Amino acid sequence: MRTPEARRVFNFCAGPAAIAESVLEEARADMLSYRGSGMSVMEISHRSALADDLFEEAEANLRRLLGVPKNYRVLFLQGGGSQQFSMVPMNFLRSDESAEYILTGHWGAKAIGQAGLEGTPHVAWSGEEERFVRVPENAELDLLERSAYTYFTSNETIQGVQFDAEPTGLSPLVCDASSDFLSRPVEIDRFGLLYACAQKNAGPSGLTVVIISDEMLDRTKPNLHRMFDYREHAAAGSRLNTPPMFSVYLFLLITRWIEQDMGGLSALAVHNQAKADTLYARLDRQSDFYTTHAKPTSRSIMNVTFRTPSAELDAEFLAAAKRRDLTHLAGHRSVGGMRASIYNAMPVAGVEALCELLDEFRDAHQ
Amino acid sequence: MRTPEARRVFNFCAGPAAIAESVLEEARADMLSYRGSGMSVMEISHRSALADDLFEEAEANLRRLLGVPKNYRVLFLQGGGSQQFSMVPMNFLRSDESAEYILTGHWGAKAIGQAGLEGTPHVAWSGEEERFVRVPENAELDLLERSAYTYFTSNETIQGVQFDAEPTGLSPLVCDASSDFLSRPVEIDRFGLLYACAQKNAGPSGLTVVIISDEMLDRTKPNLHRMFDYREHAAAGSRLNTPPMFSVYLFLLITRWIEQDMGGLSALAVHNQAKADTLYARLDRQSDFYTTHAKPTSRSIMNVTFRTPSAELDAEFLAAAKRRDLTHLAGHRSVGGMRASIYNAMPVAGVEALCELLDEFRDAHQ
Repeated sequence: MRTPEARRVFNFCAGPAAIAESVLEEARADMLSYRGSGMSVMEISHRSALADDLFEEAEANLRRLLGVPKNYRVLFLQGGGSQQFSMVPMNFLRSDESAEYILTGHWGAKAIGQAGLEGTPHVAWSGEEERFVRVPENAELDLLERSAYTYFTSNETIQGVQFDAEPTGLSPLVCDASSDFLSRPVEIDRFGLLYACAQKNAGPSGLTVVIISDEMLDRTKPNLHRMFDYREHAAAGSRLNTPPMFSVYLFLLITRWIEQDMGGLSALAVHNQAKADTLYARLDRQSDFYTTHAKPTSRSIMNVTFRTPSAELDAEFLAAAKRRDLTHLAGHRSVGGMRASIYNAMPVAGVEALCELLDEFRDAHQ
Repeated sequence: MRTPEARRVFNFCAGPAAIAESVLEEARADMLSYRGSGMSVMEISHRSALADDLFEEAEANLRRLLGVPKNYRVLFLQGGGSQQFSMVPMNFLRSDESAEYILTGHWGAKAIGQAGLEGTPHVAWSGEEERFVRVPENAELDLLERSAYTYFTSNETIQGVQFDAEPTGLSPLVCDASSDFLSRPVEIDRFGLLYACAQKNAGPSGLTVVIISDEMLDRTKPNLHRMFDYREHAAAGSRLNTPPMFSVYLFLLITRWIEQDMGGLSALAVHNQAKADTLYARLDRQSDFYTTHAKPTSRSIMNVTFRTPSAELDAEFLAAAKRRDLTHLAGHRSVGGMRASIYNAMPVAGVEALCELLDEFRDAHQ
C-alpha cells in the first residue's frame, strides 16, 4: 500500500499514536457501508442490532485477550485519562478519606491534583526529586493503614518509566494503564480498577476503556452526576448516552488485529520487549553519545526517552529523523531530548530505521 | 458511488445520523495519509502543526458559518449532550441558586435531573401534561426574578418539537442545540452558552461543540475538576487533554461541505424547511391515516414524528420502509410510531422516497 497517495511514515508519536496499516485499510474499506448496511459505522444507531454486535464483540475480544474475570465490568467511556483523574476520586474518595498515590511522573501528578478536590491524596512514594527516572520497589512505599485505594501509573509516557509488575497496596489498586494497555498480559484480578485512554495501543483518541471489579463498583459514592458515575455506565452497558461509535469500532478492529495478526498479548509482549531491547541496546552501546532518561530497571518498553550531548544536537537529530520519515520523536518539553514511542503498531522495521539513524548520527557528530 | 460494495441507504436515524457521502469519501481518501503526512489524522499529535491547522480551520469555519462574535469562545469537548446536562449546573448553578428550565421533552427532563445535584432547577414551563406536543409562547413562561440562567432545548429530538425563535429569559440563555445545530442561522449573541453534540448535523458521536460568551465564562464556579471547567478548556484552546482528533476532523469536513456544497446556513435553512414542508404536507394530506405528534406551530424541521392508525400498522410500515432501504424510522419508545430525522445530510431524494412510501402504504392499508 506504499503507493504515492498513501506514503506511510514510521510514526513514533506518544499519542495519538500509530495504528496498524491493515486496521486503517479495513476502516477505509468500510467507510461508506459498514457490514453491508449502506451506512458508515458513524451513521448507525447505537441502539441498533449492528451496534449491539459491535459492543458485544469489542467487549468479548477484550475479555479474552486480557482474561478479564466475570466479576469485572468493561466500560467504554469518553474524556481520556484526564477525565479518569477526576472520576476515580469522585467515585471512591470521600472527603474524610485518604487515597494512596504512587508518583512516578507527569500523569500521576495530574491525577493527584484532581484527587485533592474530593479528599486527601497521600503520596506513598515520589520520584520527583530524582527527576522521575525510576519506579519504586514495593518496600519503599509509605502506605497508610487505611486508604480508599492505591493509585499508580503503570507506564509514565513522558518520562518513559514503567512498572515491571504492579505494586502491592493495602487498599484496592487503581491503575492508569493508558500507555501500556494491551501491550502485554495483565492479571486483572489484582486491580480494583484499571483504565486506559485508547490512543496509544487501543484505538483513536476519544475512547477510554475502564475495567472495574463489582466489589469496587459497590464502593461508589452516592449522588454523583450520572455521566461521572461508574455504576450508571455499567448498568447501561456503556451506552448511557451515545457512545463514540467510530472509536469503539476502531478498538474492535485493533483487538482483532492483536489476536489474529499479532498472536495475542503474550506474543505481543515478546515482540514489544524485543523492539525495546533492540533500541535500548543500541543506545547503551553508544552511551558516550546518547544518554537514556530512565534507570535500566524501570525502562519503559513503550516510550524510550534519550538525548544527545546537547540541545542543539537533539534538534539536529530530530531534523535528520524527519528527513527519513521518522516522525514525532521530540521528547516532552518537561524532559527534553527525544522520545521514541514504540507501541504495538510500530513495526520492527521502524525500530531498525531509528537504530540506523542513531549510528549514523553519532558517527557524524561525535 | 452506489457500487455494490458501497450501496447506500436513506438513513433517517436520529443520531448518530447520516453524513454527506462526499464527506465520507474524503475521509476514506485521507485514511492512510492525512494531507500527505504519511499518517492518518488519528495518528498525528494533537500538539503538531497539522493539528493546529485542523483546529484553527474548524473553529474559523464555525465562526464564519454562525457569525460567532469575538467575545465568544468555541470549545470542542467530549461526553455528548449528557455531559453538558451536568457541566452547565456544575459551572453556573450555585447551591443557593435557582436556574430556569423550559421543559419541552425528553432531553430537557434529563438536564433538570442533573441540575438538581447542584442547586434548584425551576421549571418555568412544562409541556409534560400535553405529552410534549409543543413549545411555549414566551408569555407562558413563569420566570423567577433571579436565576443563574434560563435553559431550553431548541429542538427536542424524540418528540420532534422545535422553537422557531429562542425564548427570552431574565437570565442568560443556555441552549441545548444538539439536534438543530448548524441546520439554520442562529444569533449567537442572544445566548450565554449554546452547545450541541455533533452526531446529528455536525459530525460523528464523540464530539460536543460549546459556544460560550466571555461574560458567562466569568461566572464559572471555583474549584471545579479541570475536565469539567469551561475556563480550563477555553484557556487550553480545547486541547486541555487529547481531543477526539478524528471527530474534529469530520466536523471540519462537514463545515466545509455546509459552506461550499450547501451554500451556507441560510441556504441550508431554506433547503431543510423545504424538506420538512414536503413531508408534513404529505402527512397532513393523509390525516385520515397518519397522525403527527407535534402541533403545527411547534413542528421540528429536523425530526418528523408521526404514526399510522395502530401499532401493528406502524410495525408493518417500518418493515416496508426497510425493504426500500429507508432505515432507522422507528420512533423513540416513549413516543412510539415513526420518526423521520431529516438532518442536513438527508437528500431531497430520501424525503421523496419516504413520501412515496407514505402514499403507497396508506393506499394499501386504508
